[in-house]
Amino acid sequence: MALANEPFIIDGLELSNWDRDFLLDLHKGGVTCVHACCGLWENARETLSKIGEWKRFFDENSDLVMQVHTGGDILKAKTSGRIGVVLGTQNTSLIEDELSLVPVFNQLGIKIMQLTYNNQNLVGSSCYEERDSGLTRFGKNVIDAMNKEGVIIDLSHCGTQTTLDAINYSSRPVAITHANPDWIYPSGRNKSKKVLSALRDNGGILGLCAYPHLINGEETTLSEFTDLIKQTVDFMGVDKVALGTDLTLNMSEDFLHWMRMGRWTHEINYGAGSASQPSWPSWPSWFQTPSDFPNIREGLYETGMAEKDVNAIMGNNWLQFFTAGFEANKGG
Amino acid sequence: MALANEPFIIDGLELSNWDRDFLLDLHKGGVTCVHACCGLWENARETLSKIGEWKRFFDENSDLVMQVHTGGDILKAKTSGRIGVVLGTQNTSLIEDELSLVPVFNQLGIKIMQLTYNNQNLVGSSCYEERDSGLTRFGKNVIDAMNKEGVIIDLSHCGTQTTLDAINYSSRPVAITHANPDWIYPSGRNKSKKVLSALRDNGGILGLCAYPHLINGEETTLSEFTDLIKQTVDFMGVDKVALGTDLTLNMSEDFLHWMRMGRWTHEINYGAGSASQPSWPSWPSWFQTPSDFPNIREGLYETGMAEKDVNAIMGNNWLQFFTAGFEANKGG
Repeated sequence: MALANEPFIIDGLELSNWDRDFLLDLHKGGVTCVHACCGLWENARETLSKIGEWKRFFDENSDLVMQVHTGGDILKAKTSGRIGVVLGTQNTSLIEDELSLVPVFNQLGIKIMQLTYNNQNLVGSSCYEERDSGLTRFGKNVIDAMNKEGVIIDLSHCGTQTTLDAINYSSRPVAITHANPDWIYPSGRNKSKKVLSALRDNGGILGLCAYPHLINGEETTLSEFTDLIKQTVDFMGVDKVALGTDLTLNMSEDFLHWMRMGRWTHEINYGAGSASQPSWPSWPSWFQTPSDFPNIREGLYETGMAEKDVNAIMGNNWLQFFTAGFEANKGG
Repeated sequence: MALANEPFIIDGLELSNWDRDFLLDLHKGGVTCVHACCGLWENARETLSKIGEWKRFFDENSDLVMQVHTGGDILKAKTSGRIGVVLGTQNTSLIEDELSLVPVFNQLGIKIMQLTYNNQNLVGSSCYEERDSGLTRFGKNVIDAMNKEGVIIDLSHCGTQTTLDAINYSSRPVAITHANPDWIYPSGRNKSKKVLSALRDNGGILGLCAYPHLINGEETTLSEFTDLIKQTVDFMGVDKVALGTDLTLNMSEDFLHWMRMGRWTHEINYGAGSASQPSWPSWPSWFQTPSDFPNIREGLYETGMAEKDVNAIMGNNWLQFFTAGFEANKGG
């Protein structure tokens, strides 16, 4: 069997405090590759420092982890028994107003960029803005550059109009790395049938999200989560659904404030949380650490899903999407 | 004959206004590779923009030019008939005070860094400081990181103590990409016998410089320049001498002010120039553009030098030095 057909576990987004223990938990969970968040509001200079810190982490733990730039790197992580980390940002703030920084950060391994985080930015509007004016002129240039370089477009936090514009404008399939259908779990951050139809028709992919505020909190049962997966598969097709847990383990309150408020407000802002749930959410019992990924796999088997489909959702769809998406398209 | 044994023309530093015409002149001169200056006083953020501009230049002129990260890339430039450009900086200002930025900028292709430009910085002292306190503690960390990553240490503008300290501290051979022996052409920027002996004994390399202020101005004859080369070969050995013309064509007065004064002074400063020669120097008749490299080669032949030695000096010494120097030394 070709390596790419073996079962992979790949997570479409994690935002945790990456240390050696976290790597060991990922390893225990059988995880081969994770898209790790390398920035929320950071500008170019700040992102350089973050990349520098990640490189040091990769270097100091090279027995357990390696940076992923290509699909081949994911296979290499698999064969060497390490965790492959794809660095990405949940914003385009790192390129500031400068188109030429797309290839620069691509070379540093920022292989996924979410067009907007929680606010209006130079590229488009977020799902939390009152009005979404859609993809900007600069935004179109940024998408062209990302399409050319092989940087995957992530629309998870984008507003509806910006998301539809980006799907329509991009010459390559795009990703929503971490969100759920809003008709199953209502939330401004989750996605409508209109958006997910457009994503499906574009050849894109959706990473379903276990972030407690985007499901029914820590009380959500495993069978409710696997039911979410099955319903989404019924709507999108089994080749277009994956996981993007948005796991946030061992993060500080300071980081939570940075995540929600950046430098743009001095008032408390809850993001997907609320005044009654102001802190980091507690996670469901079946997903306390990344060593619990096999629970999701077992849950899917219990629904009667075929092995091939379980593997597709657990990681092989991401493998295929990342492999194609990370390739440059210099001629296109 | 192996490709690496064919004659190469490689220039150890040029600071010119890189446009398509300049590439065509390099091509006409038979040049395969140039170390191009990608920064003088620029900080991390500014250097990102400069790298972005260079990448755009490479992309828009990919029929004539390619970026060089490895010795293999130089061979690739040769076989494809393009100019290979090694990006480097004449300062360590790009890493600011942050050790982790050495691998970050290495990944972006900054393969040569001069430890200091014309001033004291966080790493060491320049040749123009009144006192040279030598390599700093941070400077030692920077050298360790450069040695590990395969970023070549350039000492051309460094002060004597800083230069001797760096040669002594570095675990790998270092370069003086553009300077001359000071006993032939006296200048604070040229190098003493003590420094060049240390460089030679370290396995390092010296790029001899045609910058008019570091020889006898535009009146310097070709035979005087080839005599400089011969005398230096006699002192250093033919395997340790190369060219680093420091060619500065079509540069603006604004750039000259930036080069000499950066942000550190509001008083006029002449660097290697003087009040009587305040502007860009005129170049000798035999080296008006990079299409004139064959004149230097012919001049060397006329001294009676063997073909193998002429090739070594014109480029093959740099080929060997760059090939070894650009390799990472992760285990070392």
